[in-house]
Amino acid sequence: MAQLLPQALLTTIDEIGKLPGVGARTAERYAYHLLRANQVSNEKLASAITQLHTGVKSCPVTFALIDSSEEVSTLYSDSSRDKTLIAVVEEPLDIIALERTGQYRGTYHVLGGAISPIDGIGPEQLHIPELLRRIGDDSVEEIIIATNASVEGESTALFLQRQIEDHGLTVKMSRLARGLPVGVDLEYADQITLSHALEGRRTL
Amino acid sequence: MAQLLPQALLTTIDEIGKLPGVGARTAERYAYHLLRANQVSNEKLASAITQLHTGVKSCPVTFALIDSSEEVSTLYSDSSRDKTLIAVVEEPLDIIALERTGQYRGTYHVLGGAISPIDGIGPEQLHIPELLRRIGDDSVEEIIIATNASVEGESTALFLQRQIEDHGLTVKMSRLARGLPVGVDLEYADQITLSHALEGRRTL
Repeated sequence: MAQLLPQALLTTIDEIGKLPGVGARTAERYAYHLLRANQVSNEKLASAITQLHTGVKSCPVTFALIDSSEEVSTLYSDSSRDKTLIAVVEEPLDIIALERTGQYRGTYHVLGGAISPIDGIGPEQLHIPELLRRIGDDSVEEIIIATNASVEGESTALFLQRQIEDHGLTVKMSRLARGLPVGVDLEYADQITLSHALEGRRTL
Repeated sequence: MAQLLPQALLTTIDEIGKLPGVGARTAERYAYHLLRANQVSNEKLASAITQLHTGVKSCPVTFALIDSSEEVSTLYSDSSRDKTLIAVVEEPLDIIALERTGQYRGTYHVLGGAISPIDGIGPEQLHIPELLRRIGDDSVEEIIIATNASVEGESTALFLQRQIEDHGLTVKMSRLARGLPVGVDLEYADQITLSHALEGRRTL
């Protein structure tokens, strides 16, 4: 089949198709949308993408994403934040999910992923030594291990718990509760979730 | 809530969020992916987006998308293409769908949309006069009206049919068959599709 689309459009489709979960059809739709959008808005998008790396860095303490101009994350430097409480998450965006609850006043620590031998991610690639140091430096009293409710998240939580114990650090450790999410009918809940909900049942 | 993400990331999320069907979560995921991708590949994407408009133009005859360096679409200029047969489509990408069948040897005409009063698209915004001219110029014998199987596509097809008749052009007109798509169980087919399938039933 001859080339049916102009090269500039094909290149854009190819590049957009590298985004996670974007198949050929979706990439075509996005590229066609950009073709119909005006040049000014396309240049805004292009410049945002180009400047992403220079504008963003990792907080050296919490590994949250911060402006390149900042020293440490405001979620750490803010004096109203309880530094003796740390929520350990896998990825920087997990912080936003927890902040949206409006209930948490502690600080964060981003591991930078979860242990996953299949993807070649071992504990040495995660920011675990930095966490162990923080526990001492900030006299941390409680660690909430808020890794994902996946196999990788669970093994990372377990590994972290052992590491903290092995280092002789006495700190209260907890894991986010597991059970039925809001709005889900019992009959549609999977059996593992339901087992967790049973195990963690609360007395009324 | 204070600004939880670096400005450069927020800008990228905003700009990506303007793509069709991309919600806040998806935009976050794309932007985070770009943040983790390397600068070279991000610049490739950015430059593809920036050069989209300069690299692509509309074919002046068929209104298909072509390279800026081309005169007319190769799907028109190609001598193996039957110029007396035109498939009329709404959008340039519809051509690809028809070409993928490998069955069509005629030419195309892109209307540039469908009549949709709600979206403020009237017949005067579509490339209908150019089509009427082509019917005369190329001594066209058959028009396949391949607009979408939507309300807008149907009204556009009807409008087009009347225009061609009103202009006294004698040309065979057809519409793509409607019925059950491949792989669909009868019980899951909607009633309009099923009505079409009944109406258009073929004698064995």
